[in-house]
Amino acid sequence: MKISTLGPKGTFSHEASLKVNKQAEILFENNVWDIFETVSEGKANIGVVPIENSVSGTVPLALDALLEFDLNIVGEEVLQIRHNLANSSSASDIKEIFTTEQAYEQCVKFLRKNLQDVNIIETSSNAQSAKLLKESNNKSKAAIVPEFAAKIYGLKIIKKNIQDSKFNVTRFLIISKKETKETGNDRTSIFIYPQVDKAGLLYNLLGEFAKRSINLTKIESRPSKGKLGDYIFFIEMQGHKSEKKIQDAFSMIEKNFFLKVAGSYERKY
Amino acid sequence: MKISTLGPKGTFSHEASLKVNKQAEILFENNVWDIFETVSEGKANIGVVPIENSVSGTVPLALDALLEFDLNIVGEEVLQIRHNLANSSSASDIKEIFTTEQAYEQCVKFLRKNLQDVNIIETSSNAQSAKLLKESNNKSKAAIVPEFAAKIYGLKIIKKNIQDSKFNVTRFLIISKKETKETGNDRTSIFIYPQVDKAGLLYNLLGEFAKRSINLTKIESRPSKGKLGDYIFFIEMQGHKSEKKIQDAFSMIEKNFFLKVAGSYERKY
Repeated sequence: MKISTLGPKGTFSHEASLKVNKQAEILFENNVWDIFETVSEGKANIGVVPIENSVSGTVPLALDALLEFDLNIVGEEVLQIRHNLANSSSASDIKEIFTTEQAYEQCVKFLRKNLQDVNIIETSSNAQSAKLLKESNNKSKAAIVPEFAAKIYGLKIIKKNIQDSKFNVTRFLIISKKETKETGNDRTSIFIYPQVDKAGLLYNLLGEFAKRSINLTKIESRPSKGKLGDYIFFIEMQGHKSEKKIQDAFSMIEKNFFLKVAGSYERKY
Repeated sequence: MKISTLGPKGTFSHEASLKVNKQAEILFENNVWDIFETVSEGKANIGVVPIENSVSGTVPLALDALLEFDLNIVGEEVLQIRHNLANSSSASDIKEIFTTEQAYEQCVKFLRKNLQDVNIIETSSNAQSAKLLKESNNKSKAAIVPEFAAKIYGLKIIKKNIQDSKFNVTRFLIISKKETKETGNDRTSIFIYPQVDKAGLLYNLLGEFAKRSINLTKIESRPSKGKLGDYIFFIEMQGHKSEKKIQDAFSMIEKNFFLKVAGSYERKY
């Protein structure tokens, strides 16, 4: 089993991938788009991709890739997120911090209170922050890192659990060329592109779900890449796409709008 | 007139601020949150904050700050976004590129086609990318920069208009302690927090607008920072909050839900 996910070693994505399959061989990619490509080309069996965090929200590139690639969501995984401040000496010397934009957002109150005049250096992953701190070997630098990454890179954690919200989880999607069967406790993810700009349109769309008592668990708008104010909707609901009420709702919507099913899979919450 | 916006000198936010008021004194901040603070403390008359881009979508921190601070949206400004590749020598030598996550997303196809094996160094603003390139003085480094920033920092543009989508605009909000009067061509922005998890709830909420023919121009979900799947909705509509049909819709919604009006202001598109 080969899993493609976000690298380098030590990312939350790495940790989530091991939760999906402890024995898997992990292939590390630089960004979400490359994970989709690796799975599409058959170089990995599945991909593990962060889709949303309970504090910082949806990962836009993951939605864009789900829409663009012809892959299925076959599962999800939820991971507790804990951020830690790593530094080679003590907090008083810190002049610069390596952090992802997401970790910064999730620790913004802690940082503004304790490290207000520190220079922020944005990195592309939390493990990258750890790696850069390790390589810099400089007492005036620190990094916001997962405990998992601190262990891998041999970093000293000087302050644990610095995230502002105690409840901080990230949800990952498992993507594959294959599909999964109904389990009785499923979620279905779709895209709808109304392509017209009319009052009450989204209301009427949602009505197709409401009148069939289909419970929506997420609704998110993404720019259509056309004009400002023109959106594609990413909608998730309880149930499997093989259920009659969901099929009925989809066929009503498809009469007028673009609809793409991204997958039906067992839900974890 | 003092305007607080994202720095350093040369950001798209700087350009948008000059579009709002050519003579204004510009105060540069490191992040969106600091702009809100500067305006709240009366150190600037208004703030100019990016809220969404037609390609990369909404700026999450701007929504969070709008919800948190007690300020009003008093206007909006729309700016054409053009990205350019700046480098001190020629494209063939490029090993590393300074870019914001947003500019990277907006030029991803160009980069994957022309500069595939290049190392990406994330920066916190497009002008920061320009500044870092200037300071690095290294032929193997390049940056994705606005033309405005290239001029300010004296950089050579080796490839113009590298953004993937010809239609790429960013919308900015103007925030203030004051309010504005109805112009007849207005937009109103609000937050609604349903606080309960029930099938059809969003549908019923939107019904209050649909049945009064209030045209929604944006709907976006943000995590409530509580449990996963618990959202606050940011909704924008045509019209001013002083109009009767909008007041009626708000009072119906307020009976059951948390509602915050972020502002009514003249719309530019």
